[in-house]
Amino acid sequence: MRVGIDIGGTKCLGVMLDPEGEVVAEARVPTPSTTLTLLDVLVDLTTRFDQPSSLGVGFPGLMNSNGEVGASAHLGEVQSEPLRARLAARLHDLDFDFPVVIDNDATAATLAEWKVGAGRGVDDLVMVTLGTGIGGGFVFGGRLYRGARGYAGEIGHAVIVLDGRPCPCGRRGCWERYASGTALAEAAGTATGEDAVVAARAGDPAAMRAFADFTRAVAIGLANLVNIVDPAVIVLGGGLIELGDELLEPVRADLAAVLYGAEHRAIPRIVPAELGERAGAIGAAMLPERQSTGSR
Amino acid sequence: MRVGIDIGGTKCLGVMLDPEGEVVAEARVPTPSTTLTLLDVLVDLTTRFDQPSSLGVGFPGLMNSNGEVGASAHLGEVQSEPLRARLAARLHDLDFDFPVVIDNDATAATLAEWKVGAGRGVDDLVMVTLGTGIGGGFVFGGRLYRGARGYAGEIGHAVIVLDGRPCPCGRRGCWERYASGTALAEAAGTATGEDAVVAARAGDPAAMRAFADFTRAVAIGLANLVNIVDPAVIVLGGGLIELGDELLEPVRADLAAVLYGAEHRAIPRIVPAELGERAGAIGAAMLPERQSTGSR
Repeated sequence: MRVGIDIGGTKCLGVMLDPEGEVVAEARVPTPSTTLTLLDVLVDLTTRFDQPSSLGVGFPGLMNSNGEVGASAHLGEVQSEPLRARLAARLHDLDFDFPVVIDNDATAATLAEWKVGAGRGVDDLVMVTLGTGIGGGFVFGGRLYRGARGYAGEIGHAVIVLDGRPCPCGRRGCWERYASGTALAEAAGTATGEDAVVAARAGDPAAMRAFADFTRAVAIGLANLVNIVDPAVIVLGGGLIELGDELLEPVRADLAAVLYGAEHRAIPRIVPAELGERAGAIGAAMLPERQSTGSR
Repeated sequence: MRVGIDIGGTKCLGVMLDPEGEVVAEARVPTPSTTLTLLDVLVDLTTRFDQPSSLGVGFPGLMNSNGEVGASAHLGEVQSEPLRARLAARLHDLDFDFPVVIDNDATAATLAEWKVGAGRGVDDLVMVTLGTGIGGGFVFGGRLYRGARGYAGEIGHAVIVLDGRPCPCGRRGCWERYASGTALAEAAGTATGEDAVVAARAGDPAAMRAFADFTRAVAIGLANLVNIVDPAVIVLGGGLIELGDELLEPVRADLAAVLYGAEHRAIPRIVPAELGERAGAIGAAMLPERQSTGSR
């Protein structure tokens, strides 16, 4: 009975998977903003499940293969923390002695969508999650790809506008400042990206313009990824994906318009993620087994 | 005795490799602009070598795994041509019956630098060639990565300036409009990128500004690649790389300044390509053997 926890921008979601990979229990708590309380929350969530056999955690930021935090734009205080070791020690003190693995949240979500979601059977795929920021993960040649240091997939911080909008990461013009739910809400003057969509549907001109700019920015970044790594499939995730074709149709049209050589190549399929908000937690639960069997 | 030909922006360079991989002969001719004359040139170059056992060709544009041209920004007329099949047929007519393989020129150069150049022994690397345009190639997890359709590495057409400078590819803001030798020359008002460097060294203010903008644009694009695929090493090639530290030092400094989480991560090494203008031809010569042994 594997437990996985996804640390989100606002909540931590925990799930327990049975041996067949089905979610048999879940729990959620608000995401704290400091290391200490983050550890408390992770321990608390884990102990809510009955007899876990392993724990995987999806972390929103750079996480190396030793489970040490490289950086997190949203959890500033936890930088450079040996989070995995601390969490394992805390659980050990409570007599929980099972494998603990921490990896990037988007990497975990990619693993889940590839193994049991929208990317099943695809050897070369890119997963893109449009949430508070933009996360990404890759499968190349039939293997989950983490990069040389485990930091691959920080696609939200690829610059698409030189000297553009400031980003909490300290730089300017990052893709996620134009193509995340947050960016859509800011441009439309609404509280959330979903609100912006409602306003656009109602004919609000600013919201309609913001939505058109948003889908075009999504497409530009996807085109960049296609030009760079040429996946067979792009799995699009995040809350806004529930819009379905209302989002996918303009993105597909914009992608065809901006992709290099689009008229002479098959454009990668863009498919919606299937596991919804649980993708990260499900994939996190799959991390320890994957690591222990030595598969990449 | 394997022959490789690199189709460059201005010239086609052919080399012959002995069984140990050493270049034992070379020849060059100007690059033509139509399919028909391109075939003539490739046949002519090949027949200048003594008893070739295979032919590999590096092509400047999208090339699928059947050797059919997807697109080429610089060789407009050859789009959608079954170039490999036509070339093999022409050689067959001359009683040359050996394996003929065509792949993207940057993919070929990446293979050469990885196998016998600056990237020897590296499992995760990005090769970036700053020439007339910008080409790229990848090694991921110890395997040459071509993408789902063989089109990976079109990094010069990743957009870094939304609605920026027009590109011959028909889009705007492509990286190579800011970070290629051509872009440097245009910004400095000189004939070539090398001329711009000479003018900058002489204290010409416009050239100095152009060079600073150029190195920063190179760094922004490299930072994007690092954020996306997290290589251990970046191999930088192209004519301007002969500048050595005059180019590499500002690029490394700019990269450290713009990389997400740079203060908390090891920044990938940036190393100059070792095979110079021959990289593409040497790698092209290695393509047929690689393909016939089934290695990726």
